[in-house]
Amino acid sequence: MPMIRIAQAQINATVGAFSTNSAKIIEAIHEARDDGADIVTFPELSICGYPPEDLLLKRGFLQDNLDALERIRECTDRITAVVGHADYLDGKVYNAASVFQDRKRAAVYHKIELPNYGVFDEKRYFMKGSHAVVFEMKGIRFFLTICEDIWIEGGFQETSVKGAGVDIIVNISASPFHAGKLDLRIQTASRFARLGDAFFCFNNLVGGQDELVFDGGSFVMNPQGKVVARAPRFRESVLVYDIEIEKPKTPGRKGPGDETKGVSFHLASYEDQARGELSPPVTETYGRLDEIYQALVLGTRDYVIKNGFKKVLIGLSGGIDSALTAVIAVDALGPQNVVGVTMPSPYTSGETLSDAGRLAANLKIQLITVPIREIYEAYLHATDAVMDNRRHGIAHENIQARIRGNILMALSNQFGWLVLTTGNKSEIAVGYCTLYGDMAGGFAVIKDVPKTLVFELSEHVNRSRGREIIPESVIIRPPTAELRPGQKDEDSLPPYPMLDSILHAYVEEDKAPDEIIEAGFDREVVKDVIRMVNLNEYKRRQGPPGVKITPKAFGRDRRLPITNAYLRRLD
Amino acid sequence: MPMIRIAQAQINATVGAFSTNSAKIIEAIHEARDDGADIVTFPELSICGYPPEDLLLKRGFLQDNLDALERIRECTDRITAVVGHADYLDGKVYNAASVFQDRKRAAVYHKIELPNYGVFDEKRYFMKGSHAVVFEMKGIRFFLTICEDIWIEGGFQETSVKGAGVDIIVNISASPFHAGKLDLRIQTASRFARLGDAFFCFNNLVGGQDELVFDGGSFVMNPQGKVVARAPRFRESVLVYDIEIEKPKTPGRKGPGDETKGVSFHLASYEDQARGELSPPVTETYGRLDEIYQALVLGTRDYVIKNGFKKVLIGLSGGIDSALTAVIAVDALGPQNVVGVTMPSPYTSGETLSDAGRLAANLKIQLITVPIREIYEAYLHATDAVMDNRRHGIAHENIQARIRGNILMALSNQFGWLVLTTGNKSEIAVGYCTLYGDMAGGFAVIKDVPKTLVFELSEHVNRSRGREIIPESVIIRPPTAELRPGQKDEDSLPPYPMLDSILHAYVEEDKAPDEIIEAGFDREVVKDVIRMVNLNEYKRRQGPPGVKITPKAFGRDRRLPITNAYLRRLD
Repeated sequence: MPMIRIAQAQINATVGAFSTNSAKIIEAIHEARDDGADIVTFPELSICGYPPEDLLLKRGFLQDNLDALERIRECTDRITAVVGHADYLDGKVYNAASVFQDRKRAAVYHKIELPNYGVFDEKRYFMKGSHAVVFEMKGIRFFLTICEDIWIEGGFQETSVKGAGVDIIVNISASPFHAGKLDLRIQTASRFARLGDAFFCFNNLVGGQDELVFDGGSFVMNPQGKVVARAPRFRESVLVYDIEIEKPKTPGRKGPGDETKGVSFHLASYEDQARGELSPPVTETYGRLDEIYQALVLGTRDYVIKNGFKKVLIGLSGGIDSALTAVIAVDALGPQNVVGVTMPSPYTSGETLSDAGRLAANLKIQLITVPIREIYEAYLHATDAVMDNRRHGIAHENIQARIRGNILMALSNQFGWLVLTTGNKSEIAVGYCTLYGDMAGGFAVIKDVPKTLVFELSEHVNRSRGREIIPESVIIRPPTAELRPGQKDEDSLPPYPMLDSILHAYVEEDKAPDEIIEAGFDREVVKDVIRMVNLNEYKRRQGPPGVKITPKAFGRDRRLPITNAYLRRLD
Repeated sequence: MPMIRIAQAQINATVGAFSTNSAKIIEAIHEARDDGADIVTFPELSICGYPPEDLLLKRGFLQDNLDALERIRECTDRITAVVGHADYLDGKVYNAASVFQDRKRAAVYHKIELPNYGVFDEKRYFMKGSHAVVFEMKGIRFFLTICEDIWIEGGFQETSVKGAGVDIIVNISASPFHAGKLDLRIQTASRFARLGDAFFCFNNLVGGQDELVFDGGSFVMNPQGKVVARAPRFRESVLVYDIEIEKPKTPGRKGPGDETKGVSFHLASYEDQARGELSPPVTETYGRLDEIYQALVLGTRDYVIKNGFKKVLIGLSGGIDSALTAVIAVDALGPQNVVGVTMPSPYTSGETLSDAGRLAANLKIQLITVPIREIYEAYLHATDAVMDNRRHGIAHENIQARIRGNILMALSNQFGWLVLTTGNKSEIAVGYCTLYGDMAGGFAVIKDVPKTLVFELSEHVNRSRGREIIPESVIIRPPTAELRPGQKDEDSLPPYPMLDSILHAYVEEDKAPDEIIEAGFDREVVKDVIRMVNLNEYKRRQGPPGVKITPKAFGRDRRLPITNAYLRRLD
């Protein structure tokens, strides 16, 4: 009964960091060999990071990526390595997986299904591959796929694998996170494993890249579609697992299937490897709130660190959004790297101010105070005449928010701290936020977190640590922007549970207004919410990036024109 | 010798404005029939506007577009109309041209070449068509194409037309402007006309849509590839032209070509039309500066008007960028709809202040003054302690720029005026601008205009009107941000002619640093400029949209990750 030891290296690659990425890959090759692995795999485009976007249009970038691949090839003595990279052939670019053994490139596979929807633009860069690749080692037949290849029902690779007579399917991926995505991956892989009647090895990327978080969670699945080994999520690891094949399918066979084009080749096997004990299997699992929270932490940490920053600055209003943002930042970077600033105005209550102080104390972060009253009065003095002496309304609320934005950015410029903004998805959706004010900053940690989920995550933070991190008064106080006396969010917006349900239907499920009304929501409320979402596209277009945690985030996921008579009803 | 009268309706469609767009189409059908035209054509996606982006993922949008198509079909008595729209068939979406005659849909053509590069994302939305379409009328054979179909050398339609034996090629387009694009179109059409040995009718869209300007300039070309009639540019028109075919190719023939799949059909002809005199041919042509200027005017006008604004607000610094922006705004919207605001600081010189006043007087626009000294002092007072009492440097320069941004936005919020920003491409490229400061606003008129071109356009404005609009002192004064005493742009940047040459090579031609150095530029200067361009991607990401006038604008044309160790040299 042939056995193969497979190592899946779940690395945190950075886009364009060729030396760091290849050092990680080479280190994992050594580690896998030391562990007695026959084969080690790496995520999709692991040499260049994912997604490289228009860097792929630069010849120098492609060449550096191929040079790094060469260096990796030279480190593959007595082991097989499957490495994801961009391939460049006859003037065309492919999303590729190279198979190396003993410093030789045995084969290269070109991804066939290129996603070009949602956050993906792969048809902008890549040519699609034309054939399946199968290789054999120790009498065991492997079938290569890259990410999307397994997601297309009735697609080329699904057809190929059915007739291929293979024992192990390898899928190298850069599969971005959203809440619940792991279950989808398992379902998808399970279907593919059963179609191929083969073990399934899913090797995902880990780490944050601009708005995307790759959550790792690589796994091995048996031919019945059951997960038999799993890697941790949200951190790097090498998952090593012994697959025993009771009865290899068709050793020595030539092609992948009868009806599909394909190439097949044989690799050497090394029987004298020292095979150490495998580490105990990972058993940790994440609940819904856990996985979202960890994605926010990883996405924030990687954005800050990979962009060369050490410290971040957060405006603490005493409200729940900035509190949750600060907690995430502390988990991402440590309390010594998070600075809070509170900027009280004439409308700031004593309670919110003292809550900001308690939060900072609970988190052990530095807190700066810069009152804005005098600055605001100077604005009033300078503008009263040209503003027709009308002092109340949106214009004056926004002046205050923009004074705060200016102070945050001044501190950022002076000390080199990155400003984290604190807006949630609900308020960004309806435009209940000030452009250049509370939207000013480099990274919007919770921009894809609806307000009701902000509450859940905040309670989860306190519950999971068994003590109050976010002051209880912050969680129970009705949300307010505190830009005029007695202001409450619900004066301008529907109650958040209702708002979030409507937003979920409209933004994430892309339902038409009438469908949402038919589901039982008040017609006027629905129309009002949708009108606000549509009118505020221009604001979102100028907002900072932030972690995607839902199936459809604002940004690259949802590309709408600003000039748009359809949604804005200007026709 | 058969003759056909063809009308090409170059309409200004707005994305999603189904009733306005179809009213324009129906009006043009009536006009063409009154003119005795046999056939009238409309631009690509003229019913729904171009590009509709993710609106195409909404079923309601597709249905409204098909409903509008039905209304148009009903207006095609005794005329043939070729109308661009989104088609929805068996759950798939196509970029289509329907041919109507006598209220019947005679055929539909589905675009075959789908651009998915530069500013285009058509593979995100559309399925490609599978066959050519030829129709015959009065013994004359027509061949249908949509935009990109003719741009692909060796593509499907190029192959199809060679064997098709047709007399007239119709191309409906939504071809966006950049400087010099018309010449490219003429070259491309000319090649295609000669390959098909047929007349070529190019019907372009006109109007602004977010960052794109469609410049019209439809034309008729003879089989030798020479333009024989042209429509005006930058405005709506119906170009009517009589094409005489000396010897029709192969009337009665079935398919388009022997080697390509294709459908062919016959249409009725009406011999008793009253054929009025044709209007005299358009002879106007545009020089390089003219066409760029007109594109800026049209792009600005349409962004403002199509988004429901009437008036705009511009911060007038006394410098050349804001001066040119104001001139463009006045040409776009009229002087009564442009408000200037000057916001002197302690570093503002008397000359710049009086220049702003002269410009406003020359343009006959309202000018508001809001001094910022007191506000700035209030900021200093509030922040000195937390800023370590260091008052000079980028942080304090930016505070001033952001005070101005705040005042502009306050006026915008109070009066409903759209803020136009005034940054040019050179400074946006290297980040010589303040996020939330001078970058704050709704539309960035000259964001794709390099500084050297700002000078050229400014001189062109004065020259072409034969009088001083932009004060001469504004044109000759060395550029300065006036954020500290005696500041000049060239203290921080290379001379603009050198900077713009490097930027052109790096951004528009996508040359590698070494190639630029080899072309004769100083190594350190090149590295410094490129470093600045790469470091400031995060700023551009939060900037407002503006008119694209070069082959590669920042924005959708050039999609780079912010987190990017390759360009930012963080590896």
